[in-house]
Amino acid sequence: MNTFGKIFRVTTHGESHGRAIGCVVDGCPSGLELSEEDIQKELDRRKPGQSDVTTPRGEEDKVEILSGVFDGRTLGTPISLLICNKDVDSSKYEELKNKPRPGHGDFTWREKFGHVDWRGGGRGSARETAMRVAAGAIAKKLLGKSGIEILAYAREIAGVGVDLDFNEKEIAKYRDIIESNSVRTIDPGKAKEMENAVLKAKKDGDSVGGVIEIAALGVPAGLGEPVFYKLDASIACALMSIPAVKGVEIGKGFGLAAMKGSEANDEFIVKEGKVKTITNNCGGILGGISDGMPIIARVAVKPTSSISRKQRTVDLGNMGGAEIEIKGRHDPCIVPRAVPVCEAMMALVLADLALIHGLIPKRLTD
Amino acid sequence: MNTFGKIFRVTTHGESHGRAIGCVVDGCPSGLELSEEDIQKELDRRKPGQSDVTTPRGEEDKVEILSGVFDGRTLGTPISLLICNKDVDSSKYEELKNKPRPGHGDFTWREKFGHVDWRGGGRGSARETAMRVAAGAIAKKLLGKSGIEILAYAREIAGVGVDLDFNEKEIAKYRDIIESNSVRTIDPGKAKEMENAVLKAKKDGDSVGGVIEIAALGVPAGLGEPVFYKLDASIACALMSIPAVKGVEIGKGFGLAAMKGSEANDEFIVKEGKVKTITNNCGGILGGISDGMPIIARVAVKPTSSISRKQRTVDLGNMGGAEIEIKGRHDPCIVPRAVPVCEAMMALVLADLALIHGLIPKRLTD
Amino acid sequence: MNTFGKIFRVTTHGESHGRAIGCVVDGCPSGLELSEEDIQKELDRRKPGQSDVTTPRGEEDKVEILSGVFDGRTLGTPISLLICNKDVDSSKYEELKNKPRPGHGDFTWREKFGHVDWRGGGRGSARETAMRVAAGAIAKKLLGKSGIEILAYAREIAGVGVDLDFNEKEIAKYRDIIESNSVRTIDPGKAKEMENAVLKAKKDGDSVGGVIEIAALGVPAGLGEPVFYKLDASIACALMSIPAVKGVEIGKGFGLAAMKGSEANDEFIVKEGKVKTITNNCGGILGGISDGMPIIARVAVKPTSSISRKQRTVDLGNMGGAEIEIKGRHDPCIVPRAVPVCEAMMALVLADLALIHGLIPKRLTD
Amino acid sequence: MNTFGKIFRVTTHGESHGRAIGCVVDGCPSGLELSEEDIQKELDRRKPGQSDVTTPRGEEDKVEILSGVFDGRTLGTPISLLICNKDVDSSKYEELKNKPRPGHGDFTWREKFGHVDWRGGGRGSARETAMRVAAGAIAKKLLGKSGIEILAYAREIAGVGVDLDFNEKEIAKYRDIIESNSVRTIDPGKAKEMENAVLKAKKDGDSVGGVIEIAALGVPAGLGEPVFYKLDASIACALMSIPAVKGVEIGKGFGLAAMKGSEANDEFIVKEGKVKTITNNCGGILGGISDGMPIIARVAVKPTSSISRKQRTVDLGNMGGAEIEIKGRHDPCIVPRAVPVCEAMMALVLADLALIHGLIPKRLTD
Repeated sequence: MNTFGKIFRVTTHGESHGRAIGCVVDGCPSGLELSEEDIQKELDRRKPGQSDVTTPRGEEDKVEILSGVFDGRTLGTPISLLICNKDVDSSKYEELKNKPRPGHGDFTWREKFGHVDWRGGGRGSARETAMRVAAGAIAKKLLGKSGIEILAYAREIAGVGVDLDFNEKEIAKYRDIIESNSVRTIDPGKAKEMENAVLKAKKDGDSVGGVIEIAALGVPAGLGEPVFYKLDASIACALMSIPAVKGVEIGKGFGLAAMKGSEANDEFIVKEGKVKTITNNCGGILGGISDGMPIIARVAVKPTSSISRKQRTVDLGNMGGAEIEIKGRHDPCIVPRAVPVCEAMMALVLADLALIHGLIPKRLTD
Repeated sequence: MNTFGKIFRVTTHGESHGRAIGCVVDGCPSGLELSEEDIQKELDRRKPGQSDVTTPRGEEDKVEILSGVFDGRTLGTPISLLICNKDVDSSKYEELKNKPRPGHGDFTWREKFGHVDWRGGGRGSARETAMRVAAGAIAKKLLGKSGIEILAYAREIAGVGVDLDFNEKEIAKYRDIIESNSVRTIDPGKAKEMENAVLKAKKDGDSVGGVIEIAALGVPAGLGEPVFYKLDASIACALMSIPAVKGVEIGKGFGLAAMKGSEANDEFIVKEGKVKTITNNCGGILGGISDGMPIIARVAVKPTSSISRKQRTVDLGNMGGAEIEIKGRHDPCIVPRAVPVCEAMMALVLADLALIHGLIPKRLTD
Repeated sequence: MNTFGKIFRVTTHGESHGRAIGCVVDGCPSGLELSEEDIQKELDRRKPGQSDVTTPRGEEDKVEILSGVFDGRTLGTPISLLICNKDVDSSKYEELKNKPRPGHGDFTWREKFGHVDWRGGGRGSARETAMRVAAGAIAKKLLGKSGIEILAYAREIAGVGVDLDFNEKEIAKYRDIIESNSVRTIDPGKAKEMENAVLKAKKDGDSVGGVIEIAALGVPAGLGEPVFYKLDASIACALMSIPAVKGVEIGKGFGLAAMKGSEANDEFIVKEGKVKTITNNCGGILGGISDGMPIIARVAVKPTSSISRKQRTVDLGNMGGAEIEIKGRHDPCIVPRAVPVCEAMMALVLADLALIHGLIPKRLTD
Repeated sequence: MNTFGKIFRVTTHGESHGRAIGCVVDGCPSGLELSEEDIQKELDRRKPGQSDVTTPRGEEDKVEILSGVFDGRTLGTPISLLICNKDVDSSKYEELKNKPRPGHGDFTWREKFGHVDWRGGGRGSARETAMRVAAGAIAKKLLGKSGIEILAYAREIAGVGVDLDFNEKEIAKYRDIIESNSVRTIDPGKAKEMENAVLKAKKDGDSVGGVIEIAALGVPAGLGEPVFYKLDASIACALMSIPAVKGVEIGKGFGLAAMKGSEANDEFIVKEGKVKTITNNCGGILGGISDGMPIIARVAVKPTSSISRKQRTVDLGNMGGAEIEIKGRHDPCIVPRAVPVCEAMMALVLADLALIHGLIPKRLTD
């Protein structure tokens, strides 16, 4: 169950403090230009140590392509990617071996598997998402061939929100803004406010969460396989599988619950010879299938579970009460680094559905 | 892609106004007592015409078991269920053939498949969810063997919300309350208010939406298959695949985005010899695996798309503008009938993961 | 595990003496012309009572399409097919309840499932193959759109073999010959000899087996998904899943084991501007992918397990020895009726791989 | 489609002359003792250069475990294995770039993918089977926990066959004999004869094939998932996916085609309180499910396609005729090295079905 997708299939592997983490991308069409740089570029957006609001851990996360690419183009065979683990300091986890950290999967993984790698969260660590970003970089490149672009940003951090509606034409400008502030938001005015909220939590030994909005532009009508592999269901599955994500909504999402049908329905019009909707409350998805408007999804990201404040837990050795203070080097807010992870998961969903639908051919060689 | 699940696998089929709708449930252990009544009971909770707040259509939805059960017990072979379609009136749809209804999948299904059954929404109709309820009835019965119970209710309708926290011990009482009011809510005091809001929308030729909360009680720690078939990701996929659902959250969900880590983290304690969490902000799921606390999910249900008010659309025949008024007999609020559908989808997820995990054996025959 | 295929997916259900048998075909492209007659035609080739060499049971096997087809064309939604069971006489099986029939799955199904439908072999009966033939009829029709044809025939019965090499141009003539003799062989001269051998075994209360050759013509190079869903591996899986089949070979098959590389290798030539092989020892498959030559497979069919002669078995009730004589009405040789089943399984494999490869589009509507 | 299995899932990757080959084994229970030595031991049985009858290429095939194992035991997380490629000499393949080698997949892979790695057969090379052996070593170890053992040997090489029936009690002795002769046969008397046949072919610039028999002992009744994931169908798929295998049979296989039902049926008896069959013509599988007797399968292995004799082919550059002589260092007979590959594939099938059936628990930690 470490595999995602039906045709464009990604299998990730690796524990946080093991020898390496990696993934195998199977089902990518042959003939796609692909280099390690294409992938590294995305990984660098996720890596630790980018700014004051992220962890200072020095993971370099240098990716290698082991197979599936020859002469600069994909072969249609499995693409194997690997990142060797460096800067691993497991010592701080020794004392947590029997004391599950609140908010983390320590307890549940131990219940499920009996034997766990307790170093750095093991397989349960969000370090695993590096390989999602790596695989997502390939999916993005593939989607780009069909004019599909994906963009995510922090819509809210620590209760500070932005209130902009997406304008499809401005995507290049958005990208610049997002990458130019430490919290990866789209509104330069709010960026400072968000950053301050994160730094305050950091100083307090606490953490904050937020909301990420993910948009996919240029998606033609027709993607999504009813009734159980619908586009929205697939996006929900993909995004909810990201550590720390506890909610997913499409279009106006939970806001629709309090609207009237006459407000919520997106009426149709013909625009430049194409059927469009006047509003986009449905987030570009009707009946589980894309309708040609921008795909809009949002996720709730909980505050980072690792905080340095004292917390109550239990000692699984003697089944007594215990207290812990988590030392390590942690992100006071995971949102900025989760932005490329959300983009990657959206890309994986769309690449898979585009291949199933036949939008992207199995061979890009002629 | 009309199949849900890995081991407990449900394949549904059928168009709204076709000969029949049905499903095949594969992977159910042998030896489970099962009768048509077990299934009918759940279908009756979903069927139209239950009250003033639902559609008056007279679908009887009588289910037949065609295979997989012998001498009152399952065989471990595919269980085939069928409902023959009755009370079908397709005439009103004739004029909508080329005019996609806003909010519905008419347009996207036509874009995707080219050839569609335009009668009553065809395969895109929520009528398909009857088979989810039927399959879910089997899953519930199976889960019951392991002491797992599922309960859903309207938490909010037309902006009117209830504000109760789940008490595991009171589940029998909750069931009585929920089935005794027309909106299937848990707070008798709010039921009337919700009902009035629905009836007002109905009178106005409009519709309303709401929020459904789904709880699974008695789930032991250990269910969920990281990293892509996590319990929360699977629940999100299952619930988001229900027509009209546009958002899913687990535990405090979107509420977590504005909390501090020190508030959001559920601290551990030992209670009656078992590890429990003091709060349940995470909705019973940590690291994608159940932690032994109640599983709590919530979905946003959009207002019914079929409204009798005039709406703008396009005529796909001549690509010009058009207006429609949807006549049929429609639910002014789908929430009460969606409650058993949400329960069913939660049951399908848990039955599948319980079988994968080995909590439920492949054979119940001793 | 009652589902076959990845994209063109067939799920069968039903016990031999239950209410009905059926199947759901998911993933068939929209826009394919399809009628009940298209399917019935193939079922009639498999049904009992066709001649003296088959069982005289009077199953009519009348198929109904319940969903997935509208206005004579497929919708791209699940196609549900049903055959109601008639002429069921379960009384003869009553005494066999605890006495497993040699050669049948009675014992192993009971070991696996604990609770079984003992009437007529239940789900383990070859009656299940009727639905493979029904689904295969759809696959054949789909493949026909790409010029792919499938033909099978009895190559050997009771040790009497034919020795002809396939000539692609003569397929229409072959079809006529095969359907004009009771054993479905390609050599009219050998047909009588085979028939006599079957009738002799019948008179002796015994049974005989044989070999079926299956050819697929018009398959372009490129079908087959290495390394685990290769064309030959998929064919082997499909054919070996047919009851009574105990061996599968591709091209010269077991004959290759004793050949030299210099004899076995099929050398390449250019013919009418296309790459062809001079010989076809590999049966049209190289490296798990079709090479543009005819696909040739052969299966070993064991003699029918149901024989009227006295056989030793055990009484599972008291774990003592026992003897049985199987009375029912059985085929002295299953080969002639297995011919359309083999064709169907080959069609299912090719339809699935053709869709995965993109040879057949997801939509046939324009 | 580079993934095998449903629960115990193996994904292989890597091109013959690329940076590395590897695999990811997902779904292995936690708590299984596992070391690199366990895997290396099996790889050494497959590696080149073992004797005069195999290729003298010096691939060392040293395996590394990158993830999924901690403190000497599996974690229940994906086990990633890697072999870095060494001793790679691609120069001889340069001239074959446009001239497909007869018997190989060069032509079909190129037709399918358009862009191929022509060095050493790329992904189509049998080098890929090293990872099957590696994954199979884990499966074997897992099966050993349930007392299941697998053994394969050369039953026929170059037309020289052995004629022994398996005696379950002698398995240790068989292992010794098989590993003590260069052709991996079970009959020391025939070993020399087989070896001479291979060496003669080698001297002649030719190659020979053979038949491998694979036995699985200790398999309890109940494994196999009807109707499409039957034990025999799964074995057929697994074995036929091995390069050079062109036929698979179970039990007496093709021999059954000419037998009478009264000869072929395996009658039941009670032996030491257990139901057994007197003969084992069905190879331990009835109705697609194991019956508790030894599982017996046989595969036809074609003669190695790479021969040094002159062969006709085509030049895909100018679509004209061409001739080639394959120089490299090739196995005159692949059978001895294919023996562990066959064992591995049988192990993968049984491990997967044992997990699905619940014979092996998901957790081996207590």
